Amino acid sequence: LNLRQNNFSAGPGALPTEVLEEVRDDFPVFAGLGASIVEVSHRSGAYTEIHERAKSRLASLLGLGDDWHVLFLQGGASMQFHQVPLNLMPRGGTVSYLDTGSWSAKAIKEAEIVARDRDGTVTVAASSRDADYTYIPRPSEWTVDPEAAYLHFTSNNTIYGTQFHEEPICDVPLVCDMSSDFLSRPIDPKKYGLIYAGAQKNIGPAGVTAVLVRDDVLQSRAEGLPTMLDYGTHAAKLFNTPPVFAIYIVDKVLGWVERQGGLKGMVERNEAKVSRLYGALDASDFYRPTVREDSRSHMNVTFRLPNEDLEARFIQDAAREGLLALKGYRTVGGVRASIYNAVEPRSVELLVEFMRRFEAAYG
Amino acid sequence: LNLRQNNFSAGPGALPTEVLEEVRDDFPVFAGLGASIVEVSHRSGAYTEIHERAKSRLASLLGLGDDWHVLFLQGGASMQFHQVPLNLMPRGGTVSYLDTGSWSAKAIKEAEIVARDRDGTVTVAASSRDADYTYIPRPSEWTVDPEAAYLHFTSNNTIYGTQFHEEPICDVPLVCDMSSDFLSRPIDPKKYGLIYAGAQKNIGPAGVTAVLVRDDVLQSRAEGLPTMLDYGTHAAKLFNTPPVFAIYIVDKVLGWVERQGGLKGMVERNEAKVSRLYGALDASDFYRPTVREDSRSHMNVTFRLPNEDLEARFIQDAAREGLLALKGYRTVGGVRASIYNAVEPRSVELLVEFMRRFEAAYG
Ligand SMILES: Cc1ncc(COP(=O)(O)O)c(C=O)c1O
Ligand SMILES: Cc1ncc(COP(=O)(O)O)c(C=O)c1O
Ligand SMILES: [Mg+2]
Ligand SMILES: [Mg+2]
Ligand SMILES: [Mg+2]
Ligand SMILES: [Mg+2]
Repeated sequence: LNLRQNNFSAGPGALPTEVLEEVRDDFPVFAGLGASIVEVSHRSGAYTEIHERAKSRLASLLGLGDDWHVLFLQGGASMQFHQVPLNLMPRGGTVSYLDTGSWSAKAIKEAEIVARDRDGTVTVAASSRDADYTYIPRPSEWTVDPEAAYLHFTSNNTIYGTQFHEEPICDVPLVCDMSSDFLSRPIDPKKYGLIYAGAQKNIGPAGVTAVLVRDDVLQSRAEGLPTMLDYGTHAAKLFNTPPVFAIYIVDKVLGWVERQGGLKGMVERNEAKVSRLYGALDASDFYRPTVREDSRSHMNVTFRLPNEDLEARFIQDAAREGLLALKGYRTVGGVRASIYNAVEPRSVELLVEFMRRFEAAYG
Repeated sequence: LNLRQNNFSAGPGALPTEVLEEVRDDFPVFAGLGASIVEVSHRSGAYTEIHERAKSRLASLLGLGDDWHVLFLQGGASMQFHQVPLNLMPRGGTVSYLDTGSWSAKAIKEAEIVARDRDGTVTVAASSRDADYTYIPRPSEWTVDPEAAYLHFTSNNTIYGTQFHEEPICDVPLVCDMSSDFLSRPIDPKKYGLIYAGAQKNIGPAGVTAVLVRDDVLQSRAEGLPTMLDYGTHAAKLFNTPPVFAIYIVDKVLGWVERQGGLKGMVERNEAKVSRLYGALDASDFYRPTVREDSRSHMNVTFRLPNEDLEARFIQDAAREGLLALKGYRTVGGVRASIYNAVEPRSVELLVEFMRRFEAAYG
């Protein structure tokens, strides 16, 4: 009843057990505070220390220079679909998007809503929609407007199980929805103007979105925006009450990432899981990965079995053995094993063993 | 080190100890889930049950009929300052505001930003700014435009320590920022079109805002809004990942309110604390309440001592005795004791005893 099992949830996803044990120990009283951390002012010394440490840990893990602002906002990555163009689309200007999945498509839709009021244009530089988003279009296939204020892409497509394995090279600043592979590998900050990521996959619980914005991009933003939607408001100071608990956990998870050796450590940890799992998929004819080989996600591994009945049985039997949340996204079907940073290599080992036994029984 | 003390924080504020003990017991594993509650899909059965129960508990505590929608949104009450006029200000129309404190003033400012794009007009029906917001203007002093789409007011002014003791009577739907006295007393839902409240005073941790909207008001909203800012998006379904942990606590706090006898129970509990504390203030010349008697808040009790040095010493000595967070808001000064629902009557008793001793020593 009270054992932690192997959690392959696509998000909210697994967090490090040691972090959750620390959380337990901080309730109902955070040592020295006389109250829990969710009951004290967000202007208090205790919370300020957590907030500032989380910001500086994030900047240092990613190698961001002093010209970057680290914001912890509410509303989820979905709010960023709106807030990015609201801040960064010039009047009468163009913005460009790579359409590689449902989340990209939603981001494009929100940009088009902003464009209506701005006499702006949203161009799609490339799309893999025609092939059910099963691959990442190659740079040679893109048409990025050189005048675009930014090129937006989704580095990892949670639903379809595809991922960019090279950072797009182009002359306009990159804006990236990194929600589902944030902090899973190093990045080259110079290429980016803005990065956002909902916490609930790799860095914390739902309820906070990390938004990283380069100062020159911030300064180029539209004027006269609603206060809460203006990135400048949050870059200038802690404007209103932040989602304290979510940020408190993010800080702890960032500490855990540091102790694993930072993003280099994360890559090593993740590569081992990735090669074990795709290796098993490729070694069998029973399991079929759903995406083009060069586009395979290292975070969300999607595959099919010979038929839907077997898929349903696979997911059910796995859950009975403590391998949880393997069902593919509702509109896509099949199996999806999300192996975010916190998922233990041992969980992947157990999954691979289960796959062998399942194939032996039903293959 | 690990004892809970007497927490008079204005927000994030005190929560019931028994709720926080339950939280402790749900980490690192929520019984039967194999993971903690912050690591499972927001579409899972376990979370859906919590989410739906929180919604129905809230509706039933407030006596809301089927024509109300209960939404749990992100962004804080500050985001509602924008979202309310964005949804409800008609093109070329008027909205009206009661200006009774800093939060009201911020709400007015955001309405004016929306009005620019809508050719709208924001009228201030009454203001107590001229007297440092130390009272609530009487209804006979208001000028509400009868054509206004709504009249907005702040039922409790957290910073100044004033509160409406009667629900405004007027012919247009009321929109209320109830952040700092939400669920502290019954309301008459018929008078309202929309109510919002940041959770972090009376019903939970920071990170979720309850938004209650009557269906006819919802239907009257503007068209073509950004998806995440459109109340209709969230009324129709759970659109994106909600702030799971915050809502999980809200659900528990609502259960606690039910066990205390609902809002009637809350009034009794709060009245006892209120009369004890204001009684002590009135019985002495050393302590001076800062607001007009008919406008005194039952949630944030603000008062002054003979001089600022004594105030600083009062706050410091109190903290040493486990009476926490009594400092007035930074722009106002003085002492503020926030006695939200979860603050124990015993904490108020200890505060009153401390006040007696302090006056005997320094009065
Ligand atoms: C890549 C990506 N972008 C955006 C979102 C939407 O995030 P949220 O639910 O926080 O709005 C998700 C959610 O799963 C996602 O995976
Ligand atoms: C009455 C009232 N309205 C609005 C706010 C702002 O809330 P938030 O910080 O959640 O945006 C507060 C915060 O203390 C408040 O007391
Ligand atoms: Mg996707
Ligand atoms: Mg295969
Ligand atoms: Mg106020
Ligand atoms: Mg007195």
